[in-house]
Amino acid sequence: MKMKIDGVPYRTIWPDDNGRCVHIIDQTRLPHGLVTVKLETADDAARAISDMLVRGAPLIGATAAYGIALAMRNDPSDASLDTARDALFATRPTAVNLRWALDALVAELRPLRESGRAVAAWRKSAEICDEDVAICEAIGEHGLPLIRAIHEEKKDAVNILTHCNAGWLATVDWGTALAPIYKAFDAGIPVHVWVDETRPRNQGAALTAWELGRHGVPHTVIVDNAGGHLMQQGRVDMAITGTDRTTANGDVCNKIGTYLKALAARDNGVPFYVALPSPTVDWTLASGADVPIEERDGAEVSTVAGRDSCGAATRVRITPDGSPVSNPAFDVTPARLVTALVTERGIAPATPEGLAGLFPELARAA
Amino acid sequence: MKMKIDGVPYRTIWPDDNGRCVHIIDQTRLPHGLVTVKLETADDAARAISDMLVRGAPLIGATAAYGIALAMRNDPSDASLDTARDALFATRPTAVNLRWALDALVAELRPLRESGRAVAAWRKSAEICDEDVAICEAIGEHGLPLIRAIHEEKKDAVNILTHCNAGWLATVDWGTALAPIYKAFDAGIPVHVWVDETRPRNQGAALTAWELGRHGVPHTVIVDNAGGHLMQQGRVDMAITGTDRTTANGDVCNKIGTYLKALAARDNGVPFYVALPSPTVDWTLASGADVPIEERDGAEVSTVAGRDSCGAATRVRITPDGSPVSNPAFDVTPARLVTALVTERGIAPATPEGLAGLFPELARAA
Repeated sequence: MKMKIDGVPYRTIWPDDNGRCVHIIDQTRLPHGLVTVKLETADDAARAISDMLVRGAPLIGATAAYGIALAMRNDPSDASLDTARDALFATRPTAVNLRWALDALVAELRPLRESGRAVAAWRKSAEICDEDVAICEAIGEHGLPLIRAIHEEKKDAVNILTHCNAGWLATVDWGTALAPIYKAFDAGIPVHVWVDETRPRNQGAALTAWELGRHGVPHTVIVDNAGGHLMQQGRVDMAITGTDRTTANGDVCNKIGTYLKALAARDNGVPFYVALPSPTVDWTLASGADVPIEERDGAEVSTVAGRDSCGAATRVRITPDGSPVSNPAFDVTPARLVTALVTERGIAPATPEGLAGLFPELARAA
Repeated sequence: MKMKIDGVPYRTIWPDDNGRCVHIIDQTRLPHGLVTVKLETADDAARAISDMLVRGAPLIGATAAYGIALAMRNDPSDASLDTARDALFATRPTAVNLRWALDALVAELRPLRESGRAVAAWRKSAEICDEDVAICEAIGEHGLPLIRAIHEEKKDAVNILTHCNAGWLATVDWGTALAPIYKAFDAGIPVHVWVDETRPRNQGAALTAWELGRHGVPHTVIVDNAGGHLMQQGRVDMAITGTDRTTANGDVCNKIGTYLKALAARDNGVPFYVALPSPTVDWTLASGADVPIEERDGAEVSTVAGRDSCGAATRVRITPDGSPVSNPAFDVTPARLVTALVTERGIAPATPEGLAGLFPELARAA
């Protein structure tokens, strides 16, 4: 089972049959065009990450892994491995999967002779992708009963709010926050998704709405300002988001604005779940206060990308000339506002004990 | 003293010297062009309100008053008065000043002979404008000590977050939420304003940033998602917004998203003030649950207005074809989240007693 674009199954990243390049969907072109891009070097992969052709913590990890594999195909030396690793690591400071995937590749390859590194790197990258798919599908299976329970009590469609894009476009397949929604939809449970636009990059309006629509899931796009009001009116049954990094105490670093929705959910008694593949846990950080928050280019705030009336991709400026802007990309939702974490091993409270209980070997290793 | 555009004092609405038309600033053209528009009929005034060439509760009231005056100049009959009143009243359902201004005009004009109505209507409209200026300046004077106190304790620039536009563009002059900020700036207190972009119409990015910049007030535009994070980081000393309608218990109906910022302010111990001209109080409603919330055109969500790279005004589409949108324009911030109301008669707690204590004659009359 794979996510579908108008009936055709897709992954977000796949190696070419000849094993010399990797294909991705250029997510900066969505929702107005489905364009795939070929990556041939580690630099291509690094640019795809930093320019956000690919985004989402799990997909960033998978792309970084293939970036190493591309480097090994071109030059399997230690110097090439280190250079590729450093270039890929510098792309996005917040997503912990990036480091996790790079560490996994380097640990696998460093002990090998140069002649064996390329094949091993491609195999390991494919494993990381397959593992991500398995993790995401398991998150979907564990989250499904939460939606089913609301439906059985309500006897009506379940209204679910999500922020940013934690769908299959953010992963290799299935998604994290959207995986339970796809599982519920495929199981015939009526669902309706409130899609936060998610300024400044509009991943909700551009990506979440697109992938839900292509798979046939009912949804409505709203501005980021609207979710609190909808919760006050009883029009949201649950909220679920992804995460770029979760610290050992259950604090959730995710797309800027997640914290505001968690506050509103708490104020209105709406359960607020975070879908959490274990590679996004940073066991080395005690709390979210320690997560570095990426400050991105101000042009993302002062301009908006879209399609003009002729169908051409364009950007429009919305702020006055001379007005400064600030663009923090993530915020930290304190664990106290998170109803539960939905992981590939089941559901846990957002506490040190909750996380360590599900992943004792990872917690111990930290 | 008047607000200035690059040194030149302006109001947002002013009658023509010949008393046959009214001029407004077309706020849909800001921040990329300063264009004035001439209103010659009540229909012109109604369209200016419904198409949001003018917006902001106090300015809507002033424009509606002049709309009646224009109708009386063209046809001073009872039928004309009723028609103009109904057309103007239908433009925006949430702003209570609209009804307040129309009621004031109708009460003034109905008893008069037709021959006297036009002159009386112009005089009354001018009075409403002058009264609004006086109210706003008084709000500024009462809010100034709040900013001064933070500055004296902090010995550094005061960081103030605001949502939407409650500046002089939303009123006739001075503004409501921004009036204390202009007063502080003019008094030499260092201030810096975090300007929420305010999707879907971007009144913050387009109007608040523009008017602060033209007057020389330091500010930074942020997306609506960012304010909670900035509060968590201690980078917001106070928040202040306007209101479109406040109910007798102190619940504040204001631009969609205000509630989320009030929640974040509460969670972080940041004082959250609402600037409140008494005509925006709806004494007939016991709580915010009773306020009708305007649902506006979905195109405001699915598209964004801006200036393209050639400098032309344009709109870009940001959502996929076929994705539904929803566009509630306001939300209700419960009184419990409001630190205090800043009115033209002073500062009051957001309670029935607080409001009635400052405006006993209005509370009694309801």
